[in-house]
Amino acid sequence: MGAVRGNVVIGQSGGPTHVINQSLVGVVEAAIGAPGVGAVWGALHGVKGVLEERFIDLGRESKATLEAVAQTPGAALRSVRKKPTREECERALEVFARRNVRYFFYIGGNDSAETAHILNELAVAKGYELALFHVPKTIDNDLRVTDHCPGYGSAARYVALSFLGDNVDVRSLPGVKLNVVMGRNAGWLTAASALARQHADDGPHLIYLPERNFSVERFVADVAAVQARLGRCICAISEGIHNERGELIAASNEVDSHGNVQLSGSGALGDRLSATLKAHLGDKLRVRADTFGYAQRSFPGAASEVDAREAREAGRAAVRAATGGEHLNGSIALLRNSNAPYSVRYERVELRSVARETRPMEADLIRGDNDVSPAFLDYVRPLVGELPQLARLSDFPVS
Amino acid sequence: MGAVRGNVVIGQSGGPTHVINQSLVGVVEAAIGAPGVGAVWGALHGVKGVLEERFIDLGRESKATLEAVAQTPGAALRSVRKKPTREECERALEVFARRNVRYFFYIGGNDSAETAHILNELAVAKGYELALFHVPKTIDNDLRVTDHCPGYGSAARYVALSFLGDNVDVRSLPGVKLNVVMGRNAGWLTAASALARQHADDGPHLIYLPERNFSVERFVADVAAVQARLGRCICAISEGIHNERGELIAASNEVDSHGNVQLSGSGALGDRLSATLKAHLGDKLRVRADTFGYAQRSFPGAASEVDAREAREAGRAAVRAATGGEHLNGSIALLRNSNAPYSVRYERVELRSVARETRPMEADLIRGDNDVSPAFLDYVRPLVGELPQLARLSDFPVS
Repeated sequence: MGAVRGNVVIGQSGGPTHVINQSLVGVVEAAIGAPGVGAVWGALHGVKGVLEERFIDLGRESKATLEAVAQTPGAALRSVRKKPTREECERALEVFARRNVRYFFYIGGNDSAETAHILNELAVAKGYELALFHVPKTIDNDLRVTDHCPGYGSAARYVALSFLGDNVDVRSLPGVKLNVVMGRNAGWLTAASALARQHADDGPHLIYLPERNFSVERFVADVAAVQARLGRCICAISEGIHNERGELIAASNEVDSHGNVQLSGSGALGDRLSATLKAHLGDKLRVRADTFGYAQRSFPGAASEVDAREAREAGRAAVRAATGGEHLNGSIALLRNSNAPYSVRYERVELRSVARETRPMEADLIRGDNDVSPAFLDYVRPLVGELPQLARLSDFPVS
Repeated sequence: MGAVRGNVVIGQSGGPTHVINQSLVGVVEAAIGAPGVGAVWGALHGVKGVLEERFIDLGRESKATLEAVAQTPGAALRSVRKKPTREECERALEVFARRNVRYFFYIGGNDSAETAHILNELAVAKGYELALFHVPKTIDNDLRVTDHCPGYGSAARYVALSFLGDNVDVRSLPGVKLNVVMGRNAGWLTAASALARQHADDGPHLIYLPERNFSVERFVADVAAVQARLGRCICAISEGIHNERGELIAASNEVDSHGNVQLSGSGALGDRLSATLKAHLGDKLRVRADTFGYAQRSFPGAASEVDAREAREAGRAAVRAATGGEHLNGSIALLRNSNAPYSVRYERVELRSVARETRPMEADLIRGDNDVSPAFLDYVRPLVGELPQLARLSDFPVS
């Protein structure tokens, strides 16, 4: 089977990352001039832009613009949170057929992989030859199959840097500090806070992941114990923590079209836990809560170099797979060859193996109810890259 | 009058900054070997460390450690929020007399200047010869007399970078984004968000400062108008906004020993304003609120180069003033010589001119009810330094 011949459409979907545009540019630069490829277009706002036929011509962008865009966070094609209906998928295929679009690259998370999967099944059923590839991205790192997701390393870097700053800040003015970290279904991003431990008494001292049931009673006791021992306590708390019945501690009533509850963009969970600590441990205890915001996925300059490189390469790998002629569809997985030296390879995997379901942290990466394991640190360190070493005075005694 | 002879104590007080350790190291390196100066000690946790005689010997620190500490955020001597009583001031002077401390450098904001002022008046009344200098620091930039405060430029840089990231993030997934920024009494830090405007339609589109009365009705109308025009709206909101009766929109009941209400470390204001917008503009509107947290003063790598250099020099200038013999006390003010090229000079000013009261933004720096003026941008730009240019695609139409 040879490569199909026709035009390319690229879309970006879901929450942006620091490096989602690296993947976009990776697709563009690999697609231009590739065998069988005609025009290279972007759809504005993902599948919504396909339905509305809002396309832009990426083939006319200069190399300088593409390189500058690659280094800019946010989705340069603009994004969308939309699960198309079956009827919308049919319309999308009609648009593709009318414009001779034979390649569709969708850069996104598990929801976007599901959209790609549905679209692909319909194309196969209708006999419309379409090379359809999903390029993984998510700061949550919760895609199946792939070792890790482009976007995660940079968000993890932002989180680790924030906790590094908090270590010196809370050491200056001691108390309890709660940091609520993004990650709806999995604790990967919250867990990355552990990279901030440079000195023996550095935080985070407690790490609460959605992979474990959260108990308010244990939380209060944990914090009290650390506070008694060190005079301060820094907690990393996933926004997705829930009780043993699976009920979110931060419940809200806003739901998107994929059925996801809104957790981010609100300080409610941190404030609730602060109030709980004060109620149990006394009003005189200094408790502060920060809810890490959208800076986790967009703060300029926080990108991890490894992550940026891999996101770019994932885009290129998708084009290689799509034009190679061996498979008409798939997702790109990053598979780790070794940790020292760190290296990965890029492989095409089945769309359905990535779609919809998410991947929690494996048990061997977690320690007890409130910490990560050394194996997790080995896993995450190369993705985040070197972190600045924060210095302390020697505290020489005055004789 | 010649320089006094004796030992040096340095303290850090109030909220830390990215560059408060630059000032500490500036004092240390200028003090060691200066005429009249004996040992150079640090008091742990500011005036609290003086009272408890918790001193460390800074003279024994290596140059490498001092340089590494200078580049680390947080207060390396640890900090305190404490207004000493008159009796405590008397005890502090007794400690100084017993240890022949003749120089006290207090690195802090207006509350710390007040502490220095009270301590100084008591020393004068008792006839205890003590060179007592305040070195300014605050991310709030609300000290009187000085053109700006060490610490502000770096925090302003963090805020500007966050809004830069939000511009691309909210352009990707449009809606209303509220960002609550630190600054209890003055809008300087919130105003710095305006540096994120690189494209004509970039945010922040609305900037709410505590120098203006905040009206919920006007806020809702402002947001609705921007949203209708651009399809998105990014707001910079000071944590200190208040209604026309001076009542804080984010009222809380925690008060420190200086009488300051706790505003930071809680997401309540952003959540309250989000709910207000949804109630008025409809539940379907995507509204997200981030409360910028302690990363504003501690995120590693966000320091402004100009700010770091000036904080260091302010520490050195304090030692020069203290050992010069002309004045026994004072605060260091940064006075701007010119904007192009940007340059400042360091002058000794009276402690009482800086103590206690804060400095709001001047009227000519504000435009209307919800924006800053071009004069403010000229003021703030050199303090923050170059910002990364975020790139967009050209959006060439598909023919």
